[in-house]
Amino acid sequence: MDNTITKELASNIKFNNVNITDRFFGYYQNLIINQVIPYQWKVLNDELEGVEKSSAIKNFKIAAKEIEGNFYGFIFQDSDVYKWLEAVAYSLHLKENKELERCADEVIDLIGRAQQDDGYLHTYFIIERPDMKFKDLWECHELYCAGHFFEAATAYYNATRKEKVIEIAKKLADCIYNNFGVEEGKIKGYDGHEEVELGLMSLYSVTKEKRYLDLAKFFIDERGQSPHFFEVEWEARGKTSYWNGWNPCESPNASKDFISCIGAEYNQTHKPVREQDEAVGHAVRVVYMLCGMIDVARESKDNSLLEACQKLWNNIVNQKMYITGAIGSTHVGEAFTGNYDLPNDSLYGETCASIGLAMAAKRMLNTEINSKYSDVIEKEIYNGIISGIAMDGKSFFYVNPLEVYPKNHTNPVLEQVKVERQKWYPCACCPPNVARFLLNIGDYIYSSNNDTVYIHQYIANNSRLNIGESFVNIEMKCDLLKSQEIEIKIGGSDLENKNIALRIPSWSSGHSVKIFNNEADYEIINGYIYLRNIPKNDISIYLSFNSELKVIKANKRVRYDAGKVAITYGPLVYCTEEIDNGDMLYNLLFKDSKNFEREAFTHNDLELFKIIVDGYREIDNDDSLYHENNVTLENEKITLVPYHYWGNRGVGEMQVWLRIK
Amino acid sequence: MDNTITKELASNIKFNNVNITDRFFGYYQNLIINQVIPYQWKVLNDELEGVEKSSAIKNFKIAAKEIEGNFYGFIFQDSDVYKWLEAVAYSLHLKENKELERCADEVIDLIGRAQQDDGYLHTYFIIERPDMKFKDLWECHELYCAGHFFEAATAYYNATRKEKVIEIAKKLADCIYNNFGVEEGKIKGYDGHEEVELGLMSLYSVTKEKRYLDLAKFFIDERGQSPHFFEVEWEARGKTSYWNGWNPCESPNASKDFISCIGAEYNQTHKPVREQDEAVGHAVRVVYMLCGMIDVARESKDNSLLEACQKLWNNIVNQKMYITGAIGSTHVGEAFTGNYDLPNDSLYGETCASIGLAMAAKRMLNTEINSKYSDVIEKEIYNGIISGIAMDGKSFFYVNPLEVYPKNHTNPVLEQVKVERQKWYPCACCPPNVARFLLNIGDYIYSSNNDTVYIHQYIANNSRLNIGESFVNIEMKCDLLKSQEIEIKIGGSDLENKNIALRIPSWSSGHSVKIFNNEADYEIINGYIYLRNIPKNDISIYLSFNSELKVIKANKRVRYDAGKVAITYGPLVYCTEEIDNGDMLYNLLFKDSKNFEREAFTHNDLELFKIIVDGYREIDNDDSLYHENNVTLENEKITLVPYHYWGNRGVGEMQVWLRIK
Repeated sequence: MDNTITKELASNIKFNNVNITDRFFGYYQNLIINQVIPYQWKVLNDELEGVEKSSAIKNFKIAAKEIEGNFYGFIFQDSDVYKWLEAVAYSLHLKENKELERCADEVIDLIGRAQQDDGYLHTYFIIERPDMKFKDLWECHELYCAGHFFEAATAYYNATRKEKVIEIAKKLADCIYNNFGVEEGKIKGYDGHEEVELGLMSLYSVTKEKRYLDLAKFFIDERGQSPHFFEVEWEARGKTSYWNGWNPCESPNASKDFISCIGAEYNQTHKPVREQDEAVGHAVRVVYMLCGMIDVARESKDNSLLEACQKLWNNIVNQKMYITGAIGSTHVGEAFTGNYDLPNDSLYGETCASIGLAMAAKRMLNTEINSKYSDVIEKEIYNGIISGIAMDGKSFFYVNPLEVYPKNHTNPVLEQVKVERQKWYPCACCPPNVARFLLNIGDYIYSSNNDTVYIHQYIANNSRLNIGESFVNIEMKCDLLKSQEIEIKIGGSDLENKNIALRIPSWSSGHSVKIFNNEADYEIINGYIYLRNIPKNDISIYLSFNSELKVIKANKRVRYDAGKVAITYGPLVYCTEEIDNGDMLYNLLFKDSKNFEREAFTHNDLELFKIIVDGYREIDNDDSLYHENNVTLENEKITLVPYHYWGNRGVGEMQVWLRIK
Repeated sequence: MDNTITKELASNIKFNNVNITDRFFGYYQNLIINQVIPYQWKVLNDELEGVEKSSAIKNFKIAAKEIEGNFYGFIFQDSDVYKWLEAVAYSLHLKENKELERCADEVIDLIGRAQQDDGYLHTYFIIERPDMKFKDLWECHELYCAGHFFEAATAYYNATRKEKVIEIAKKLADCIYNNFGVEEGKIKGYDGHEEVELGLMSLYSVTKEKRYLDLAKFFIDERGQSPHFFEVEWEARGKTSYWNGWNPCESPNASKDFISCIGAEYNQTHKPVREQDEAVGHAVRVVYMLCGMIDVARESKDNSLLEACQKLWNNIVNQKMYITGAIGSTHVGEAFTGNYDLPNDSLYGETCASIGLAMAAKRMLNTEINSKYSDVIEKEIYNGIISGIAMDGKSFFYVNPLEVYPKNHTNPVLEQVKVERQKWYPCACCPPNVARFLLNIGDYIYSSNNDTVYIHQYIANNSRLNIGESFVNIEMKCDLLKSQEIEIKIGGSDLENKNIALRIPSWSSGHSVKIFNNEADYEIINGYIYLRNIPKNDISIYLSFNSELKVIKANKRVRYDAGKVAITYGPLVYCTEEIDNGDMLYNLLFKDSKNFEREAFTHNDLELFKIIVDGYREIDNDDSLYHENNVTLENEKITLVPYHYWGNRGVGEMQVWLRIK
């Protein structure tokens, strides 16, 4: 594999030129705009009864000295406001909303008033402990929050071209630049939770200020170096932790060594990032770190860093990813575990981690056009991410299991796995993350460089994209959940002699490509169909993929999936639910899919498809705990629904991996 | 089912009349006597390098003011000494050892010197906090330790007829009696860890002091009453905990209500014991509680209490017990979880809990002769208990899993599961418990009443047993692991017209009973063959059971065992190990046992039997994480070894439940 970054890198199209017309994703975008953003705004302002108090906006008002009070919430509470702002930015582009824009402008003004003269911004430290600023990076999320603000600021600027938010962001970034670095007197360290790196790269994309790229690179390169920064700052603090009063070395059985107590793997600080070839620790941190690494590698043409990115990427998707795209096999540290350790019931599979992996995939695609990256994006957006939000937009999964048995949910190893989506979470990272991600889905469909438009996802949209110095208009008509026929009309001022690259999804068993009514000439490279030298300015491409029901097996090292298969159709992973099949789903056996049926149904006016296959039910009428084997099989139709849809019809059993006979 | 206690209860034969000559259990008894007891003595005296410091004997010396120092160890450290003493008592009966007896006498003298004038005995409080005696029953194990001393004292008295130890025990029991009770000024409470109840009943069995029975009954009846005793003493302490400085309500997310913080189920204090119909919380505590309840119910002919015992018993063995006899499905609180929740890899299955269940089974058998109780004893002694000790007697399992995959043992839910037996544990409850249990195995073979000798287990022995006012001599010759032929010679001064009851093991598919060479007349009641009115004083019974390989299925509600079977032969549960079958045992499928072979092998000169059956190995050469199902099956012989034997040949995979085709 060629690890070098090609000269003409694909560069992401600005999100704000892609308007989603897709039936499926349009449904979710409307849900976010009409339901989630207003709901979240009320949460941030503590205006909802029965929902965990947020105080997020109030914290900013206290920090701005406009009201009196104490900081309340998680130490990363500010980031809830920033994620909301980012979602608002994307929504404003998709749909004008003067009132919402005014509200966002006011929040930005408030953030500006809370910001300190030196650019510092983090309401906990401003309000409670200004003496402790940047003195406990290990656990205090100051740079993490800054990173989310940079992402929000970039999005808001791209949507509105208003500069105020970028000014605040630059002032904050400069404050960080002034405080961190290798120079004498600066802090030679990094944040416990990666995010500022990708945030700085986001800010760099609009400001082109090289010091932000340098700062992101500094944070990445400093991570995992010796002496260990968290130990250095721990000693500088007099070996105390003041946040939550938690002293990791206080427990009677704890090691005397601070780094052993906290576990360096948790924060990916066990070795320099270029030497890390296995994804370990907190899964969201790993993928956010990976995003920053890829951005920096690409911008600075740093091939050794890119190689480290590829190693981490390969480890995640080839050894540690669930078939739904979920990552993070344990709630202990919300973390990865060993290779091929993929329990289906006691996993973490945080919605945010799936979002982070999609974000990393998009960035990998910017270093190399290869369908292995866009396939993972597709897997996440149709499965692991969408499962995080209910179809009414009112409840959310933080943890996304591949099987649940609510009537037998008594084991403490399942404690973090909720059998139904929850209204809102005290640690509310997933709901706003889903909101900002789904409104920005357009950013995942295309990329382009001087001579080629790359089409990664088949989500209906109308767009205007840069191609080198000129632009093209694209109208994509499709409904991938319904059929695999895609029509793409491309027109533009300077399309002639340019190229179009179309991804072949991994689930496709055959394809045809026509330009108007003629079979097109093409070549396939890394899973993309390349149409070279488009003959004229306005063309219609008719693309058709063959989708079949697939019976998927996991690697032989995945013991939890031994003797089981998963059913997929197109981009969708399917699952069984109790409401369709009765209980004890683990006593159902898949027979074959020769006579399978695909049947439409609607939920909240959205048409989806169930799949019905032939199977058996194990019958055992002996009710004693252990008895001689006397099981019989009865033929039974098994009904499967899309995984993302599970849990939308009340509490019941769900299972992705089905036993086979 | 008849819940009443029959008038003529079977009463346990004194252990000290049963001498084990059995090949298998004799091996383990020799191991305990020659290896474990001397080893443990060194541990108690901190004479072993590389082993966790115990300080147990030293604590007594400090308490006796013979040396200076501080208490060290767990708050229940004293019980290690008592369990050692109990094991020594059993060993002294089996094999005279003057030096060991002198050593034990010295320990008893030391205990006596440490005891306070009022009879109080618990080295932590004597040394460190005499002001806090009996003020934190919730967590401080004062009565728990006393209970273990009562068991040890009874055993030592029975073995040696020396009264000193009983005097100390009575003084301690009287101290407890003077401090606890319903009377004004006494503590209306009980211990957080049940044990004193069964200990008092043990002391009652030799002293016949009714107040010990009354006290045991008081503790049982007080448990779970309102107001909650742990809250009452918590308030009396000024809402502080001083042991380990742990305040359960200190955590930011903790409930304000103390009982909710600590979880009343953990200690079986969520409701009065007579109302408890599901086994919940710490598994060892449940079964120790059950032992005390049965003893009290039987001695006081309390049928409603016996009914509660039966409910708990039925719940444990019919819904919460592994096929190996292991109980406790989670390490969180070392506890039971819900019905049918029996994960094979992440369980607790503490060796001590299996011992406690066998102890409870023996007591149930004293209320009703029914093979369902003796079957559980057999299951435990051949599987769940013996697996706790290595065949060289040098290492021990605390947790007894039904499957382990050492190469993929990365998930934190498996943290408590060790892939190999450990030298010694800081919380050393299991090794000494195994020691005392195995030396006392004779106590589980027989019981008798005025006219009948009940034979529960087929373990070769020579014995002299009471039968009413007279006695019988029994010589039992058998080797159950090898064959199912049993010869029982019975002689005695007054055997004529008495009855012999012989248990039919649950694994037997047929039997024959001869007296001398003649087929005997018998009737079967509750799984026992009753030979009535023995014609003369000296007879030989020839008993033969049919043992077949059995293919066992778990209840359909046990999702972890769906599609799997376990292989048993006679009393033994079998398992597969990597050393015999290669790795990825979960890719092996059991075919059938038509052509099974049973093959002898020896380990440390002990002959055991492996079983070889026909099976398949799933072959999948596609190494990608997910791919279309293309598995093929190859015929492969599967080798199984007795479960108790696993882990004696190095670290490797082990699996009890085998997939079926």
